[in-house]
Amino acid sequence: MEKFNYSIPTRVYFGKGQLAHLSELKNYGNKVLLVYGGGSIKRSGLYDDVLAIMKEHKIKVQELSGVEPNPHIDTVRRGVSICKSQGVDMVLAVGGGSTIDCAKVVAAGACYDQDAWDLVIDSEKITKTLPIFTVLTLSATGSEMDRVAVISDPSIPDKVGTHADGLFPTMSILDPTYTYSVSARQTAAGTADMMSHTMENYFTNVPAADVQAGFCESILKTCIKYGPIAIANPKDYDARANLMWCGSLAINGILSYGAPVKWCVHPMEHELSAYYDVTHGEGLAVLTPVWMEYVLDHYAPAKKKLAQFGRNVWGIVNQDDAIAAREAIEKLKEFFFETLRLPKNLRELGIEDKSKIEAMAERAAKGCQGAFMELTKEDVKTILERAF
Amino acid sequence: MEKFNYSIPTRVYFGKGQLAHLSELKNYGNKVLLVYGGGSIKRSGLYDDVLAIMKEHKIKVQELSGVEPNPHIDTVRRGVSICKSQGVDMVLAVGGGSTIDCAKVVAAGACYDQDAWDLVIDSEKITKTLPIFTVLTLSATGSEMDRVAVISDPSIPDKVGTHADGLFPTMSILDPTYTYSVSARQTAAGTADMMSHTMENYFTNVPAADVQAGFCESILKTCIKYGPIAIANPKDYDARANLMWCGSLAINGILSYGAPVKWCVHPMEHELSAYYDVTHGEGLAVLTPVWMEYVLDHYAPAKKKLAQFGRNVWGIVNQDDAIAAREAIEKLKEFFFETLRLPKNLRELGIEDKSKIEAMAERAAKGCQGAFMELTKEDVKTILERAF
Repeated sequence: MEKFNYSIPTRVYFGKGQLAHLSELKNYGNKVLLVYGGGSIKRSGLYDDVLAIMKEHKIKVQELSGVEPNPHIDTVRRGVSICKSQGVDMVLAVGGGSTIDCAKVVAAGACYDQDAWDLVIDSEKITKTLPIFTVLTLSATGSEMDRVAVISDPSIPDKVGTHADGLFPTMSILDPTYTYSVSARQTAAGTADMMSHTMENYFTNVPAADVQAGFCESILKTCIKYGPIAIANPKDYDARANLMWCGSLAINGILSYGAPVKWCVHPMEHELSAYYDVTHGEGLAVLTPVWMEYVLDHYAPAKKKLAQFGRNVWGIVNQDDAIAAREAIEKLKEFFFETLRLPKNLRELGIEDKSKIEAMAERAAKGCQGAFMELTKEDVKTILERAF
Repeated sequence: MEKFNYSIPTRVYFGKGQLAHLSELKNYGNKVLLVYGGGSIKRSGLYDDVLAIMKEHKIKVQELSGVEPNPHIDTVRRGVSICKSQGVDMVLAVGGGSTIDCAKVVAAGACYDQDAWDLVIDSEKITKTLPIFTVLTLSATGSEMDRVAVISDPSIPDKVGTHADGLFPTMSILDPTYTYSVSARQTAAGTADMMSHTMENYFTNVPAADVQAGFCESILKTCIKYGPIAIANPKDYDARANLMWCGSLAINGILSYGAPVKWCVHPMEHELSAYYDVTHGEGLAVLTPVWMEYVLDHYAPAKKKLAQFGRNVWGIVNQDDAIAAREAIEKLKEFFFETLRLPKNLRELGIEDKSKIEAMAERAAKGCQGAFMELTKEDVKTILERAF
């Protein structure tokens, strides 16, 4: 186990009816920027509920709406501009990971006197942020309890993750009933996303991080159990609750403290999203098994950990590591592509041409420096080719 | 899963060489009360290292030494008196759970104008505390990352737990190498203590708290793996590190958020410690299997959870719940009493007379209101009798 500095300062109010805790925003000022996406929160009534609480506590609301999946830097800039011109005190994101990520960089940009894209490409420039609050409506990215935000600039195109302690939300409301209306497709993608975060953390080369590995296995098993239940019965509270809490735990640090690892599948997926605007969780589901097969063939120690993954997560009993590892990958594919019915290759994601592989591999390889083995540009090219 | 409000504000610096972070105390004032136990930190050199850092940062040190296991309220009072007379700004505990618990109530007592025992018997009176810092030297109670303190008054006798958000340490240094000198006996007792915390959380009646249960199982398996290694090879870093982190995770809330339960074995053990001053972890090890056998016989749903405990923690394959549950209890006994060589009954703990059973049962029953079934005074009497 390696040394680590633990700090997860976000307060979480989890469960039905926790929205009332938004009253605490009054302790942080009287002007809030409300950030949300395409308007589903208006259809569900959540928007009205939030405004009522703001009104009750005399908090003036400015709005940044229309945040897109893979949120754009231009949307962030629009939010920063509102914050600066209106003297906003704090930012409240109501939505999923994209909305929260956008709100985080808005909160940082409001305290920065140059262009917000600087903060995306250089984390160290994030030295101050407005307080960030979130109400989660989609279990997936874990942004509600972490220090990360991922922003895209389609004009380059680029999709980049930035991170800083100031990006931890001060408080997040996690009410599983707000995810009842999430579609089967988005529930599947969200489940794949949180499983990917967990697997990225799990496949570390740090030895003897037993408790962390056990936590990863617990989260994966919980996702495997409840993902299909939430799809079959969208209003199953226990399914939505377990998925929601797993989504937060998968990335808030509890899995990686003491067992750090540089993620390898995410950098590749970020290129897919940057070039083709694919749904993040779907891109991860396509790439993860291909990556596993690749490292199993090219990095000997991967066999043992993939076999452990098979036995402890999938209940595989075969004692031959090579066989157990292959079976584990097959189980994962079966779960992603048959049980969750996620797109199983890049073609099913709508990517027809291979013209961007060279460019995507060039950039992704810069980030693929951990998780068993460092991937070269050629490695990434092969993985992307195989994912078609 | 139930609703919960998550907040674990303690910053943890984990690993070799993290002591230097004590420099951060200078941000909280320039007078510290250093709290420690019987002097082992002087023999190990840790005391000198702490004083050197305080000197470097011009922090004046007052001392409260001689904190005993099952710390006494009189020791707390002594610390409070120093804080008040010297205008101390913060409290630094260097030691194990007893030292930290004492320091916590000292920090609260310093901000309270009446007798500190009030704060032990009535948590709600803890409204303000001095900042609390800890350097952990014994993996067991988890006090370094929780909001609980347990204090004894031998004159009554009584041993009572108090809890408040203000009792969370602001920062804790967890360097596994500081536990290299912990004896085999104390390592065994500490392992039993953190396993007991985990099991108390695990045996909740809250349904569908899957991720929490999985985390409990991971911690238990990690303790079962590394407890014996740490005893056989006291300087095995990975063993000490896993045990240290498990001790904190077992009680910091991550296992109980969403799956609350009123602990049942601890209230009984607190009576043993109050009357006989036994080592907390040893008392827990004696009582836990007896309690398990008792609830298995008297509360039907216990069978299923104990069987799950057997299969997921101990690798029992029998598919008959009743058999798997019994086997699980036998495995636990074997681990505690043969592998860890802990005292296996009250007589081995040095308790010869049964004269206090009535009084202990009377008081313990008031606290035994969760974990499967509420225990009456008669239930507790039977359990204590069987523990002889």
